[in-house]
Amino acid sequence: MDVKKQALDKHFEWKGKIEVVSRTEVKNSQQLSTAYTPGVAEPCLAIQADVSKSYELTRRWNLVAVITDGSAVLGLGDIGPEAGMPVMEGKCVLFKEFADVDAFPLCIKTQDVDEIVETIYNISGSFGGINLEDIAAPRCFEIEQKLKERCDIPVFHDDQHGTAIVVAAALINALKVVGKKMDEIKLVINGAGSAGTAIANHLLRLGVKHLVMCDRFGILCEGMDGLNDAHKEMSKRTNREKQMGTLADALCGADVFIGVSAPNIVTEEMIQKMADKPIVFPMANPVPEIMPDKALAAGAAVVGTGRSDFPNQINNVLAFPGIFRGALDVRASDINEEMKMASSYAIAGLVSDGELCAEYILPKAFDPRVGKTVAEAVAKAARLSGAARI
Amino acid sequence: MDVKKQALDKHFEWKGKIEVVSRTEVKNSQQLSTAYTPGVAEPCLAIQADVSKSYELTRRWNLVAVITDGSAVLGLGDIGPEAGMPVMEGKCVLFKEFADVDAFPLCIKTQDVDEIVETIYNISGSFGGINLEDIAAPRCFEIEQKLKERCDIPVFHDDQHGTAIVVAAALINALKVVGKKMDEIKLVINGAGSAGTAIANHLLRLGVKHLVMCDRFGILCEGMDGLNDAHKEMSKRTNREKQMGTLADALCGADVFIGVSAPNIVTEEMIQKMADKPIVFPMANPVPEIMPDKALAAGAAVVGTGRSDFPNQINNVLAFPGIFRGALDVRASDINEEMKMASSYAIAGLVSDGELCAEYILPKAFDPRVGKTVAEAVAKAARLSGAARI
Repeated sequence: MDVKKQALDKHFEWKGKIEVVSRTEVKNSQQLSTAYTPGVAEPCLAIQADVSKSYELTRRWNLVAVITDGSAVLGLGDIGPEAGMPVMEGKCVLFKEFADVDAFPLCIKTQDVDEIVETIYNISGSFGGINLEDIAAPRCFEIEQKLKERCDIPVFHDDQHGTAIVVAAALINALKVVGKKMDEIKLVINGAGSAGTAIANHLLRLGVKHLVMCDRFGILCEGMDGLNDAHKEMSKRTNREKQMGTLADALCGADVFIGVSAPNIVTEEMIQKMADKPIVFPMANPVPEIMPDKALAAGAAVVGTGRSDFPNQINNVLAFPGIFRGALDVRASDINEEMKMASSYAIAGLVSDGELCAEYILPKAFDPRVGKTVAEAVAKAARLSGAARI
Repeated sequence: MDVKKQALDKHFEWKGKIEVVSRTEVKNSQQLSTAYTPGVAEPCLAIQADVSKSYELTRRWNLVAVITDGSAVLGLGDIGPEAGMPVMEGKCVLFKEFADVDAFPLCIKTQDVDEIVETIYNISGSFGGINLEDIAAPRCFEIEQKLKERCDIPVFHDDQHGTAIVVAAALINALKVVGKKMDEIKLVINGAGSAGTAIANHLLRLGVKHLVMCDRFGILCEGMDGLNDAHKEMSKRTNREKQMGTLADALCGADVFIGVSAPNIVTEEMIQKMADKPIVFPMANPVPEIMPDKALAAGAAVVGTGRSDFPNQINNVLAFPGIFRGALDVRASDINEEMKMASSYAIAGLVSDGELCAEYILPKAFDPRVGKTVAEAVAKAARLSGAARI
């Protein structure tokens, strides 16, 4: 395929999509003695006396680590740390281009939870934030939780929270289009991995009351056999009617479908059996759970996917650059629930009531307002919630 | 002091001496789908199929990590990981300016040997080389040794080997100036820490036969009480005459003094009691073991220090940029003894016989030939010794 070959060729040509450059010249002895010995002793001593000065005297104030163990890269699965690097470099490019954040990619050669936590904690003093990426569930939950407890800088698993934040923004606006209320809808998520779990948690906080999770085993129901800890926990907080059955059963009468699962597993019949004016977000990439034209033909009122070649692209790039920009700007100790919630509303708010329609529920990825608007909302939420340090 | 204030002001102004930048634009959907999803899957799959492709499809081919635990930063001692960062950033600037190497600084929040080794090993797949920096002895020896065994990329503790390589280059040329031979001289090193130990090892390989190490306890002699493992090991390989006593005793009749210790501990009387035409390298920074004018007045034939305001600056910047440039250029698996030896001769060889004199035994730090010449010599030695992979 042409796109594939072109991408590979370009990567050979780039020889790396990021580069580390100097912000100062060292062309003579005087410059050398200012940037390096003996002059450099002064900023060192200033940081020794007050570690927070590391945010003023080194690049830490603007620096985010983008870290994977290579275990769940794109839809490719467990391809190993080195093979995950092109994605991490790409993410770093997006951080720079969309929010002027310096991001540096790191691939970790272990999949042991405690070793990953130890490794990341040990280098956390060099960064202002940690973006976890493409780490398989359920390991990713424990890794993020442990790191959040130990590190005094924000730790954010983008596959979970970035996705959840943008889905929530899309849902806020889609509900306006169809005239339904968050606390009255029945919402079905297919795919109870890292993204699905984070979406569920975020939407429950946003006010959804009737939420049903599905996975390969069908509807997730409290008391089922063979659930992992994350699924058990989720089963207690969703499916209030203790429904059992298949995804098709779950979708009967549902107002919203959110897919973070596999291609082509939703049929037109399933859409037809949903409630009136259903909202359908089939986000499997690159092939969604149901193609948008089919979903629309079957009666979907609003459709959003992960793809840029259809309306309503639900794309993390709307969230993570601005979120870290805002967090770094106030030297946040965490990216907390208040900051995530503020991001969703900020993204949704960029579509004015006059523009809002079934084909335009989210700002475009390249809308220049997005990064700045999200950053401001996140910084404000950090200040109000006590996560800001300046 | 003016230099100190200026350095601190400059660091506040720079807000970081390095920056991570994009090597590609992402201004529209097509660029996004080439640099990121879905196109980025192709280079990922290519690396999964052949990990060595990570050197062609990501920045790894040109990327060195500059890593400290903050335990022996400059002459400041154990100031902690964050406080070591300005030095690490400075080092990264020198890598870029002197050899176009992308270097990224990391400070590690532990001083436990095995945790440091584990952390660095775990991230080693993201880099083409590891430069260890400002880690205290004797821990640094074990850390480097263990990392060299586990990693398939070069691991190089610059405080040890960079210093040793440049001292050796200085000694090669100084001996020509005074007309003495490497295997006939008596050489005294004061300071049996990381630099002193590495200098001793490198000079023994270079052909020095009669070498005496000193430290705070005086002359290092086999069988002494209270030696650490590194000192015990060194005591077996030096001081063939089992001399005991003080630094002053060691210097009686010695041809060469090399100091990596403390300011002003060598007197004019000690120099006067050395052999004819003594070579004196008092390298304590910023105040040497004896000031050059005093050493010369006391009869020193050649004097070299770590300072740029006297002749013969013995500066690591002559070595490490070119060494890593050469190692990266041939995708070396290691920086081995052959490559280090080749670096010393390459640096020494940049001073022609016609130019060589007591005041000019080393090329200047900003001599534009240095990086390239060292890199070529290192690449050649890597090929001959089997460390090169391309």
